[in-house]
Amino acid sequence: MTYDSALDTALQRLHDEGRYRTFIDVERARGNFPHAVWTKPDGTTQDVTIWCGNDYLGMGQHPVVLAAMHEALDATGAGSGGTRNISGTTVYHKRLEAELADLHCKEEALLFTSAYIANDATLSTLPKLFPGLVILSDNLNHASMIEGIRRNGGAKRIFKHNDLDDLRAQLEAVPANLPKLVAFESIYSMDGDFAPIEAILDLADEYNALTYIDEVHAVGMYGPRGGGVAERDGLMSRIDIINGTLAKAYGVMGGYIAASAKMCDAIRSYAPGFIFTTSLPPAVAAGAAASVAHLKTDTALRKQHQDGAAALKLRLKGLGLPLIDHGSHIVPVHVGDPVKCKMISDRLLDDHGIYVQPINFPTVPRGTERLRFTPSPVHGPKQVDALVHALDELWSHCALNRAEMAG
Amino acid sequence: MTYDSALDTALQRLHDEGRYRTFIDVERARGNFPHAVWTKPDGTTQDVTIWCGNDYLGMGQHPVVLAAMHEALDATGAGSGGTRNISGTTVYHKRLEAELADLHCKEEALLFTSAYIANDATLSTLPKLFPGLVILSDNLNHASMIEGIRRNGGAKRIFKHNDLDDLRAQLEAVPANLPKLVAFESIYSMDGDFAPIEAILDLADEYNALTYIDEVHAVGMYGPRGGGVAERDGLMSRIDIINGTLAKAYGVMGGYIAASAKMCDAIRSYAPGFIFTTSLPPAVAAGAAASVAHLKTDTALRKQHQDGAAALKLRLKGLGLPLIDHGSHIVPVHVGDPVKCKMISDRLLDDHGIYVQPINFPTVPRGTERLRFTPSPVHGPKQVDALVHALDELWSHCALNRAEMAG
Repeated sequence: MTYDSALDTALQRLHDEGRYRTFIDVERARGNFPHAVWTKPDGTTQDVTIWCGNDYLGMGQHPVVLAAMHEALDATGAGSGGTRNISGTTVYHKRLEAELADLHCKEEALLFTSAYIANDATLSTLPKLFPGLVILSDNLNHASMIEGIRRNGGAKRIFKHNDLDDLRAQLEAVPANLPKLVAFESIYSMDGDFAPIEAILDLADEYNALTYIDEVHAVGMYGPRGGGVAERDGLMSRIDIINGTLAKAYGVMGGYIAASAKMCDAIRSYAPGFIFTTSLPPAVAAGAAASVAHLKTDTALRKQHQDGAAALKLRLKGLGLPLIDHGSHIVPVHVGDPVKCKMISDRLLDDHGIYVQPINFPTVPRGTERLRFTPSPVHGPKQVDALVHALDELWSHCALNRAEMAG
Repeated sequence: MTYDSALDTALQRLHDEGRYRTFIDVERARGNFPHAVWTKPDGTTQDVTIWCGNDYLGMGQHPVVLAAMHEALDATGAGSGGTRNISGTTVYHKRLEAELADLHCKEEALLFTSAYIANDATLSTLPKLFPGLVILSDNLNHASMIEGIRRNGGAKRIFKHNDLDDLRAQLEAVPANLPKLVAFESIYSMDGDFAPIEAILDLADEYNALTYIDEVHAVGMYGPRGGGVAERDGLMSRIDIINGTLAKAYGVMGGYIAASAKMCDAIRSYAPGFIFTTSLPPAVAAGAAASVAHLKTDTALRKQHQDGAAALKLRLKGLGLPLIDHGSHIVPVHVGDPVKCKMISDRLLDDHGIYVQPINFPTVPRGTERLRFTPSPVHGPKQVDALVHALDELWSHCALNRAEMAG
């Protein structure tokens, strides 16, 4: 086998399984979200509406965020110029960490270049701090958590998704004297379902386990100040480490953990993924801090977001579309076939200027392929009408199942 | 052992070994680099000159970079709103990847959120593409390369730093039918020494191994168009994968690889660290693209940088300071003791307003603790004078060795 043929083999496998990804090149128009311009492979352009972005609240175009970024660029320039330890810690980073610690009512927060690396770096470092640590991980946890848990070959046990009986059985099976950590998400982004957070925390208490929650699809959107589902449910103080992102509801970039001062200090000191990388650009930190601060009080925007999602789901249900509905802001519509899923996505884009990426294996299990809509406060009635009509037409045209209600 | 006492133990270890890191909070003044304001823990401020940043050419304050960032913020907002596959690919990302492919004369380039994750994600994915792959890794490779090579437990062999005989012996020891990759850096940032790139490539050819070079401390600064040491030496075409950063000489943030179209396509398709993370903010990509494009022609800035480094080294040598000099732009001064190293750094900052972070174990081996200066075109004669005089005074005051010339 040559190196070249090995690459051919790896790529052909994706084509054969219908899961080779083609990136769609879009540019959103600031002040006019979710409107965007799609640049096609041949260089021509077409106006589109983005229906699959994770800028859930449209904060990416919010004046307070952009003003903070412009201001930081003018004051201090583009990049930070170093790692956090070697000249890359600025007032912008410190302010953002203080905002985040306050958001989650924790002693401290620690910034990473992304929530991916926050998960990966933190979960792979914990076994160094707690020798013998066993991590109990929900089997639908995000790729970044899985990568972190696997990285250093530490002990792990995978429990069935949101299954408290299985979690108890797995906790029971770990020797009582070993340190333990239960790692899970508050909202699983593919189905939009919630974890039974309180019951998980009760179990963790019973077995003296630490807890780690990923709130990336919840921060900014749930809780009185946007602290996530754990804030909404009054549970933040019971969780040892909260992971969040600045790249979804907050509309910018970066990730973080919030925890005790001691925990943050130890992760900061031992995680290569934190230590050996250039810190976020000050302008990015400034924009994120402005967004977090703004969303601590803008409950109207949070309500508008939830109302918009509920309204869209109601209309799609009215048409009998196979919606997966667990009461969150995420609106997945079941298709169940990778080729059909891609075809509907292509038709929506080409014929209706509606951009929604097909979600296929391995992001979701085979046979559960779906379209995943992310309505936001910037999606107005006209855009919602256009989406609903296009889906109605396509569902009829492609003779897709309307009865198969999931969730 | 409780969880709390485990954290205490982990943190105490760092204090005991004198390598607990204290971050210095600085904000550079745009238009006035390397001038910055240091905010002390008590909230008071002091003017300082940054001498340890990695914004090697001062591009972080360059008008073309900042204009591109302001413009992109105005046009498209703050964040990208998604992963590369799900609404997060924009014209800014495509343009930057095209600039980088052109820079390295490769078919394509692939952006990551950092060069850390570019190394980690690429090196951990290659064994999936080339079953049985053995990675031969220089023993002074950067933490991000080590993390990537270790991650999936693939086969590896560590060769002695820049030692061609050992590399040959290690290559010889791998069965001929197994795929192989030699992974190394062009400039090692702690000593500032160069790899024998051509000889390594010859050996790789002889043993039919792929090659992977990390040029993060060289891109923008070496070669007629800033393509790195491999460009300077006319060797880019012989290297399979070139890794670089946008956060040092280019002054912004992000990392990349440049390689064949097929290689980039495979990494893009299989690396979780690429797939499952929000793409760079369009403004960051725009700023980086402007910086890369600018440095393709600004050879004067590159010359000024090298001249500045050479001049500083000459003056430090004139004072008999124990300089480590391998002819690169990096200026490490040997101290050889963690406590003295930290003390000199503290005195420079407190008494002279000169900020240079001490470099201690594990970043460098014990007994080789050092100060690492990074002169740049924005460091004028006044700043250089102030640094030289301060070091001269401190070296006398602390009775430090002047004879012990290294390198």
